[in-house]
Amino acid sequence: MSDPVSPAAAASRRRFLRSGAGSAAVLASAASAQVAPLEVAPWSREPGEPVGWHPYGQPSPFEKEVMRRSRRSVPLPGANSSMTPLHALFGAITPTGLVFERHHAGIPQIDPARHRLAVHGLVQRPLLFSMDDLLRFPSVSRVHFLECSGNTGSEWRGPGTQSVQISHGLLSCCEWTGVPLSVVLQEVGLKPGAAWVLAEGADAAGMSRSVPLAKALDDALLVYAQNGERLRPENGYPLRLFLPGYEGNMSVKWLRRLKVGDAPFMSREETSKYTDLLPDGSARQFSFGMDAKSVITFPAPEHLLRGAGFYEISGLAWTGKGRVRRVEVSTDSGASWRDAVLQEPVLDRALTRFRLPWHWDGGPAVLQSRVWDETGYRQPTPQELIAVRGLESGYHYNAIQSWGVTPDGKVRNVRV
Amino acid sequence: MSDPVSPAAAASRRRFLRSGAGSAAVLASAASAQVAPLEVAPWSREPGEPVGWHPYGQPSPFEKEVMRRSRRSVPLPGANSSMTPLHALFGAITPTGLVFERHHAGIPQIDPARHRLAVHGLVQRPLLFSMDDLLRFPSVSRVHFLECSGNTGSEWRGPGTQSVQISHGLLSCCEWTGVPLSVVLQEVGLKPGAAWVLAEGADAAGMSRSVPLAKALDDALLVYAQNGERLRPENGYPLRLFLPGYEGNMSVKWLRRLKVGDAPFMSREETSKYTDLLPDGSARQFSFGMDAKSVITFPAPEHLLRGAGFYEISGLAWTGKGRVRRVEVSTDSGASWRDAVLQEPVLDRALTRFRLPWHWDGGPAVLQSRVWDETGYRQPTPQELIAVRGLESGYHYNAIQSWGVTPDGKVRNVRV
Repeated sequence: MSDPVSPAAAASRRRFLRSGAGSAAVLASAASAQVAPLEVAPWSREPGEPVGWHPYGQPSPFEKEVMRRSRRSVPLPGANSSMTPLHALFGAITPTGLVFERHHAGIPQIDPARHRLAVHGLVQRPLLFSMDDLLRFPSVSRVHFLECSGNTGSEWRGPGTQSVQISHGLLSCCEWTGVPLSVVLQEVGLKPGAAWVLAEGADAAGMSRSVPLAKALDDALLVYAQNGERLRPENGYPLRLFLPGYEGNMSVKWLRRLKVGDAPFMSREETSKYTDLLPDGSARQFSFGMDAKSVITFPAPEHLLRGAGFYEISGLAWTGKGRVRRVEVSTDSGASWRDAVLQEPVLDRALTRFRLPWHWDGGPAVLQSRVWDETGYRQPTPQELIAVRGLESGYHYNAIQSWGVTPDGKVRNVRV
Repeated sequence: MSDPVSPAAAASRRRFLRSGAGSAAVLASAASAQVAPLEVAPWSREPGEPVGWHPYGQPSPFEKEVMRRSRRSVPLPGANSSMTPLHALFGAITPTGLVFERHHAGIPQIDPARHRLAVHGLVQRPLLFSMDDLLRFPSVSRVHFLECSGNTGSEWRGPGTQSVQISHGLLSCCEWTGVPLSVVLQEVGLKPGAAWVLAEGADAAGMSRSVPLAKALDDALLVYAQNGERLRPENGYPLRLFLPGYEGNMSVKWLRRLKVGDAPFMSREETSKYTDLLPDGSARQFSFGMDAKSVITFPAPEHLLRGAGFYEISGLAWTGKGRVRRVEVSTDSGASWRDAVLQEPVLDRALTRFRLPWHWDGGPAVLQSRVWDETGYRQPTPQELIAVRGLESGYHYNAIQSWGVTPDGKVRNVRV
C-alpha cells in the first residue's frame, strides 16, 4: 500500500507537456508527478457504505453541481425549460436524470394503471390502449437524440450566453424502447383519406401537434422506456411519442390521444408557436426536421484551461437527416480545419461524440466545429444561416459555434 | 379532449389475440378496447410539477419497486452484492442507478480532488496521476457489459431461485468513457520483463487483481464516466479499471495503484477466491474471460401471464469473446428452436437484446434461449457444463436457463 513512488520531477513534466512526442501522436498530457509516498486516504482505512446503501443509485455528492439548469425564471414555473450540462458529460448517452426539460404546463404525475391511449379519427376500429396492452406489442430499442427546436436560439444575434449548457443544452440522447407506431396504426386500421395524425399529451396544456402520416408509418415510436428503465415523469411517463430527427416538441409526452385526419389539425403549437418567421414576413410552418449541427463541449465557457500543453478537444455532432459523416475542427478561427475522430458506432440520428488532440500554445485561439451529414449538408456559418433565415426565426438555429480561448485559459462565447 | 372513442368490442379483442394475422406477422396483441369516453384524468386538469422539480431527475414513484436487491443479508454489509432488476428493464443499456453491486468492504466516499493513481514497478518513470491529469489524456467511449463471475452461481445444482433478478442480475451494460490504459503505460514506460499489472482499489479491502500485460495494452480502460456522467460511488468513483469481457471483479473499482511486475502477484482474490474448483480437485486460476450466455428476461419468474395470446419473448445475450452472432429460442423445452431477432447495433462485448414473437396457447411451456458467439462457441446445456466443470466451480456458470410456464400464467425456474 505504501510503496514509494519515485519523483518524476521537472524533466518528466516537460516531457508530458510536449505534444506529439513518440509513436502515439497524442500521448503527451498534463500528468503531474509528486515526490510524496502514496497516501493511504481515510476512506481506505475503514469499511465504506453498505451494499444497498441506495437501492436506486445516486451521483457522488462531489458531483452535485452537475445538474439541469434553466436560463431564466418565468411566471409559470411549469412553462419553462432546463438544460443538460453538456460541458460535464462524456460519450454519447445522456444520463437520464440530466435529460433536458421543456414543459408547457408542468410535469403531470400519472398513474400508469389508469393511463390510456386513445386512437381514433379516420380509423376502422377506434381503440383505447392501457399500458399493459402496449407492453404486449412487439418492441424495438433505438438510440436517438432529442433536441428542442429552440435550442441555441440565444445565438441568433451574436454571443448570447457564456455557457454551453444554456446555449446548446436543450439536447439529449438516449436509448428509447417502445412500440412502432405503425404497428398500432395497422391494428386500428386506417380509413381512406388518412394523411395526418394529431398527438395530444395528458398534461394540463393538452400539448398537441400534427404529424404527417408518412412519418407516423415510417419510424415513429410509442416509447415507454429510456436508457433501460421506464420513462422518467419529466420525459413523458408512462408513454410518449418519439419522432426520430424531428423537433423535440413533436415527440409529445404523456401521450393520451392520437387522432387520424386528412389535414393538419392547426393546433396552437403549430400556428402561434413553433413557426419560424422569415425576413419577408412569411413564416416557415411544419419545419419538422432538425438540421445537422455540432458543438465543442470541451473546452467550453464553463471550463478553465490550466496552462499550455496537450488537451483533447471534444464535442457532439448530430443530424435529423441520418448519420453524421464528418466533423472538422478549427483552432484558428476557421483558417484551417482538421478531421476529428468520430466515436464508433456512428448511429442514425444519434449524438456522435467527436474528439481531436490539440496542443495549446498558450496564445489566443478560436475553436470551432462543423459537421457534414450523410446527405452532404454542411453546418452553416452564422452569416450563411442568417442570410437565409434572417434574425427573427427564433427556432432552428444550427450555425457553427465559436469559443474564444484567452491566454489566461478562459473560454468565451464569441462570434467570428 | 373528450372525443368519444367507439367500442372495439369482443370481435376486435379476438382479432388482437389471434397470432400471425395479416401482413405483419407479429401484429396480433392484447390491446383491449373499452366503451367509455376518454377520461380526462385529474393530472390533466391542473398544472403539474415545475420545471426543475428535480434538477437531477428521479424515477416515477410508481416505479419504486424497480430497485437493486440482494440475495441475502450478510454479517458485514459492505461485503455483499445486489442485483440488477433485469425483469423490469428494456433495451441494452442498464440504468446507472440499477447497475449491480459487488463490494468487498463497502463503498468508499472518495474526494476526487484528493484521489491519486500511482503507476510504478517495472516502469521507467513511476508517476502519480490526479484526476485532472487523467481527464486531460485522450479518451474513448465504449458500450460493454460487466458481469460478476459469480453471476448465476445459484443454478449449479438445479433451480436455485425464483427470480431472474437474483439468478442473473449480477450483470449490467453501460457506455464507459476513459483513457486507454495503454496510453498511460506508454507514458510511464515499461521496463524489460514487464508481464503483469497489479490493480489495487482504494476501498478498505484493498481489492487487488493481477492483469496480464497483453490485456492491459490491448483494450483495458481507466474509466471515469458511465452512461455519460461521472462514475457512481458504488461503481468506482472517481476511477476504475475496466477490462472488456473479463470477470467483473478484475475491473477494480476506486483504482489507486497499478504495479507492473514480471509475474502474477497472487493476491488473495486470485488464490483463496475467484478460482474454480474442478472435479479432479484441481482449480482453474486466472479464469478471466466470460463465456457466451443468454437469458430470457420476459417472461421470467417475476411476471404473470394474463391469459393465452400474443407475447413478445425478450432477453439478453452476451459474450466476453466478441459479438453475439445468433440467439435461438425454444418454447417447447428444446424440442425445436427459432432464431430470435437481435437488436441492432450488435456491439463487441455488449449486452444484446433479442426478441421473438410467441403465441401462447395457454398450456404448459418451457422457454429457453441459447446463444452462439462469433468464435462459433454455443452456450452449453447445464448437463454439458457440469460434465466438464463438476458442481463445485462456484464461478462461471453460463448454461441455458429454462423457465416453465404453467396454465395459470405463472413462470417458474425449472431444470430440464
